Amino acid sequence: MIKKTILALGIFTLLFPVAAFAEDPSAATLNMGLNSLWVMLSFVLVLLMQGGFILLETGSTRMKNAGHVAGKTIFTTGLAALVYWAFGYGIAFGGDSAVNALFGWGNFFFDPSITASEGDNYPSTVFFLFQLAFAAVSLSIAWGGFAERAKLSSYIVFTLFFVAIIYPVVAHWIWGGGWLAEDGAQDFAGSTVVHLTGALAAFVATVLLKPRIGKFNKDGSANEILGHNQVFTALSVLLLWVGWFGFNAGSTVAIGDGFFGFVAFNTMLGAGAGGVAALLISWAVTGKADITTMLNGTLAGLVAITASCAFVDPWAAVVIGLVAGVLVFYSVKFFEKIKVDDPIYALSVHGMAGIWGTLANGIFATQALADKVGIGTGGLIDTGSWKQLWVQFESVVVVGAFVLAASFLILGVMKLIIGFRVTEEQEIIGLDLSEHGAYGYPEQMKKPGHNIQN
Amino acid sequence: MIKKTILALGIFTLLFPVAAFAEDPSAATLNMGLNSLWVMLSFVLVLLMQGGFILLETGSTRMKNAGHVAGKTIFTTGLAALVYWAFGYGIAFGGDSAVNALFGWGNFFFDPSITASEGDNYPSTVFFLFQLAFAAVSLSIAWGGFAERAKLSSYIVFTLFFVAIIYPVVAHWIWGGGWLAEDGAQDFAGSTVVHLTGALAAFVATVLLKPRIGKFNKDGSANEILGHNQVFTALSVLLLWVGWFGFNAGSTVAIGDGFFGFVAFNTMLGAGAGGVAALLISWAVTGKADITTMLNGTLAGLVAITASCAFVDPWAAVVIGLVAGVLVFYSVKFFEKIKVDDPIYALSVHGMAGIWGTLANGIFATQALADKVGIGTGGLIDTGSWKQLWVQFESVVVVGAFVLAASFLILGVMKLIIGFRVTEEQEIIGLDLSEHGAYGYPEQMKKPGHNIQN
Amino acid sequence: MIKKTILALGIFTLLFPVAAFAEDPSAATLNMGLNSLWVMLSFVLVLLMQGGFILLETGSTRMKNAGHVAGKTIFTTGLAALVYWAFGYGIAFGGDSAVNALFGWGNFFFDPSITASEGDNYPSTVFFLFQLAFAAVSLSIAWGGFAERAKLSSYIVFTLFFVAIIYPVVAHWIWGGGWLAEDGAQDFAGSTVVHLTGALAAFVATVLLKPRIGKFNKDGSANEILGHNQVFTALSVLLLWVGWFGFNAGSTVAIGDGFFGFVAFNTMLGAGAGGVAALLISWAVTGKADITTMLNGTLAGLVAITASCAFVDPWAAVVIGLVAGVLVFYSVKFFEKIKVDDPIYALSVHGMAGIWGTLANGIFATQALADKVGIGTGGLIDTGSWKQLWVQFESVVVVGAFVLAASFLILGVMKLIIGFRVTEEQEIIGLDLSEHGAYGYPEQMKKPGHNIQN
Repeated sequence: MIKKTILALGIFTLLFPVAAFAEDPSAATLNMGLNSLWVMLSFVLVLLMQGGFILLETGSTRMKNAGHVAGKTIFTTGLAALVYWAFGYGIAFGGDSAVNALFGWGNFFFDPSITASEGDNYPSTVFFLFQLAFAAVSLSIAWGGFAERAKLSSYIVFTLFFVAIIYPVVAHWIWGGGWLAEDGAQDFAGSTVVHLTGALAAFVATVLLKPRIGKFNKDGSANEILGHNQVFTALSVLLLWVGWFGFNAGSTVAIGDGFFGFVAFNTMLGAGAGGVAALLISWAVTGKADITTMLNGTLAGLVAITASCAFVDPWAAVVIGLVAGVLVFYSVKFFEKIKVDDPIYALSVHGMAGIWGTLANGIFATQALADKVGIGTGGLIDTGSWKQLWVQFESVVVVGAFVLAASFLILGVMKLIIGFRVTEEQEIIGLDLSEHGAYGYPEQMKKPGHNIQN
Repeated sequence: MIKKTILALGIFTLLFPVAAFAEDPSAATLNMGLNSLWVMLSFVLVLLMQGGFILLETGSTRMKNAGHVAGKTIFTTGLAALVYWAFGYGIAFGGDSAVNALFGWGNFFFDPSITASEGDNYPSTVFFLFQLAFAAVSLSIAWGGFAERAKLSSYIVFTLFFVAIIYPVVAHWIWGGGWLAEDGAQDFAGSTVVHLTGALAAFVATVLLKPRIGKFNKDGSANEILGHNQVFTALSVLLLWVGWFGFNAGSTVAIGDGFFGFVAFNTMLGAGAGGVAALLISWAVTGKADITTMLNGTLAGLVAITASCAFVDPWAAVVIGLVAGVLVFYSVKFFEKIKVDDPIYALSVHGMAGIWGTLANGIFATQALADKVGIGTGGLIDTGSWKQLWVQFESVVVVGAFVLAASFLILGVMKLIIGFRVTEEQEIIGLDLSEHGAYGYPEQMKKPGHNIQN
Repeated sequence: MIKKTILALGIFTLLFPVAAFAEDPSAATLNMGLNSLWVMLSFVLVLLMQGGFILLETGSTRMKNAGHVAGKTIFTTGLAALVYWAFGYGIAFGGDSAVNALFGWGNFFFDPSITASEGDNYPSTVFFLFQLAFAAVSLSIAWGGFAERAKLSSYIVFTLFFVAIIYPVVAHWIWGGGWLAEDGAQDFAGSTVVHLTGALAAFVATVLLKPRIGKFNKDGSANEILGHNQVFTALSVLLLWVGWFGFNAGSTVAIGDGFFGFVAFNTMLGAGAGGVAALLISWAVTGKADITTMLNGTLAGLVAITASCAFVDPWAAVVIGLVAGVLVFYSVKFFEKIKVDDPIYALSVHGMAGIWGTLANGIFATQALADKVGIGTGGLIDTGSWKQLWVQFESVVVVGAFVLAASFLILGVMKLIIGFRVTEEQEIIGLDLSEHGAYGYPEQMKKPGHNIQN
């Protein structure tokens, strides 16, 4: 039997010898293979996060918009792939980017080597896919500000500019050898690059669009527009949580000495702490253990630990998560108070927690871990120096200013030329019917008891 | 602390020394380990695609059939595992298959070596699981033609024959050293083997079953029977998309020089192009950006790039995806016109795009990549020769003829002997109640406003 | 272009040199890297199983409790991470555990090495995460007994004690070098440690809580309280199934000679056999192919093969699965008969099948595989000796007694002091509203036709 199996396998190997070696591979080749498998797995996990966003965004909004909200995520992820391939990757990492502090230039319509070259840590193809998945996550965060009232065409226009320019420029500054990288800005997996960038785009969108009909009363008080499916939102958090291990630990882009496990370890602690803190603060303050708040807290813990997962000790990861959980509770209240409609809580979960996570490095980073990673220095507690905190503050401010300005320019011009918001009538009947011609839940929406105006 | 940790790990290693080495492993062993981990991961991703099919098929059909549709996928996947183990694997890859152009014979009730043997690229166990997952995907595609009116018993009967004979024979022809392999047919990950085979079985089923009640009017015009949950269908596409990286890139069955990353790269471009093209063509032609069309376009892009992902340049992957997206839009219209009821769009998404993807190799394959993979030659554009296109055409035709004939025989005989379709009354009340005795959504179906006849 | 790509990658490597090697890594380092990647992937898969539990538990219960049921899984998983970090890990594997047969002591507030040390098979960080994910699965199984009537506070209290003490003590006994390990108890991936432990905690909870309102009539007959969404339950089984390959095959914690593939192979056969047997027995006995039974059968097959996946031949894996599928059908009937309310079927799926799977080793384990794994001896069939069956029986009994006693103590005291069950009114309106202040499905619950008392 064994002989037969070997024969069968031999045949298959004959058909697919695409990577067979004439002789045993070298240690360098095996190491490249190990890293490339890790980056590939991480890419797959980060792509899976789009499933989280589909569920988070639909679960947090109303039934009349569910098909639109879910479907557009697939579309914009696909469009993002094309745009990042054609242009965005070249701005983030293209050409001789080392000599350009502001943006890369080159590798447009990226035509990679089909295999890794001698000395590569991984083939550029898997690196591209991993980076593309990050861009698509940042984009999906931005959609939080568009929810339930933006025209479909605005999603297309914004995808083009965000994936080609806004996100890649920020990625270049911090990860592509740009000027913030030179300053030693610590953002291991993107509290700033991915989460804050997406959240600020969402902020500009929601301000330009104005609140949803019925969100705020004439006296300024806010109504709660409940999402239609908390099973979706809870499952979304789980999918995002799972994917986050590709996001954070995968950002080592190497297996090496097993340091990626430490990054994952901190990520888990930050997530747990965020959810626990948010549930307890919600329970203590309001008397009810609000589920949405707890889910937001878990995500906020993950967002906050994203910058710092490689730079801090485990106890600090717990503290960073706990603070993020409390922060998100008050942040949601704050945005309601200033009458900013934030349907998916992107501004609080990805924005506020993204800022906190970035700054937290300046407080909690240890010198030993900064040396290990090779970026920046230890933070206030370990070194007594304010230097790293200042660098972190700087990166929040300049990234913030750039994303706000660029998003305002793009969305503002778009609003003037093609319009941004659907009509009042379209919004009331829902985007499924008005933008796509059919309900996402046709059997349930047709029922006599269903009131789409709610 | 570190000392204590090592102790703790030492104990655990004592308990689970199942793969410990007395001395450092050789490069060949490490290479086998790397490949086996990659094939294992790919298997897991392809199995996850069944989650995509559960959501795709339920989301595209009505509430009264949801429990049936979802539950039977779990059942048939489990049954497929037993049948493929007992028989199918032996037909596809068993025995001294190299000397048999038509089918393998041997390794029934597969009893594999518990570890890899010297010189193996991976243990046969993970190869078996990976191949089984492919068979199960092809089977789930076939269910598209059964939807909402086939008896449960027909699912069992067809699983037996499809997994034991139909699918393995095709797999043997192209991947198991069979006669199409000898001719140099290029189908890297199964546009033909998996997708076209499943789609043609679906075609035979839907023709034998006849359209669902209410699908076509007496004047020949078609009614749209909307699926009940577009969040499910959108999420299904994401899960399938994620799983497809195991499907396509995993078909290298080796890490080697990192070529799998290139395969994944092309896969991403094909998917993105398919979705974008479908949305735009739908918007342009009908004035509405139809979500179902866009989702189908993304899947069609993935199906089409499946054969060609290892054989074409990135620009060609984009073109292949764009064409697939347009094709699926018109194909759905075509099947409606000829009054074939295709509830899950399997005929268009997996059939038409599967044919296009297979033929596309004959046009776009480059000689360099054909040499790299070691199958066939370059296509029309790169070589100016029609040879590979002819081989691709041949494989579509012969696989098509075989699958149509075999499915017709099995399902036709089954229809005569035990019947294929539920009664009209059972179909109207829905399969959940008639086949299984309870609704899949009991609380919602009992509501006064709900009309199961819709 | 290639040159430019290398440059770009060079820059990135400069930013993230966290694991770069000055020279080529040794075979031992590569082997550590391979194992650590496998354990990491397995951890991710086991964490994904929480998504399965979210869907399983919500799908099997009613709409009025859906937000509560889904949300609390995220919360308790996060809390479990903190508790296991602070305490549970130290009880299971901490300190010089080899000299302590009853529990470990040390490594509290686990502060791991940031990388693997010389000679480690993997860094302790990934081992911690993998073990934590197991603890969280066992916890989510226990929730099956709490469903639809326990106060939110009871989830918090029980998480603290279960993750800090109950689960880690059992894990220590069998996996941490404890006294059952010394006796040669075979439980490769946790039929006893994870599944039986969780199920017995669920049993204590459901007995102390008493049945849900409306479950049993005054004459002792049972009513079926249908779960609200079979798409969720079917998808849950698929997610659990996928995750189980991390659970079982990952328990090799090594790639080595590819033995993990054999473990996965047996797992697949057990799952398939369980589902097929359950569907057929349900069809034969009741005349209807009950979907819930079939889904439970698939899970029962997986639970049963969990202990034995590394110890038995493939044919035995099929037999173990088939028996589990039949067992679960009759077990559900049995618990209804003795008036134990088991909403998620945890007692049957994880309890009965967990016992069966553990005992099955004593019957089917082969000497060759026991030697390979290095635990215990062959079972009754291979060796003719009752010895291993006795050891397996012993481990079921002592683990059972401990978990029952400890759970009864904790939940009983909790019931006396803070109460365990919500009020009758709260139960009738549902936990979403009574415990959290908002429905999980607000649009659907508000409809005139919806009757929450069902």
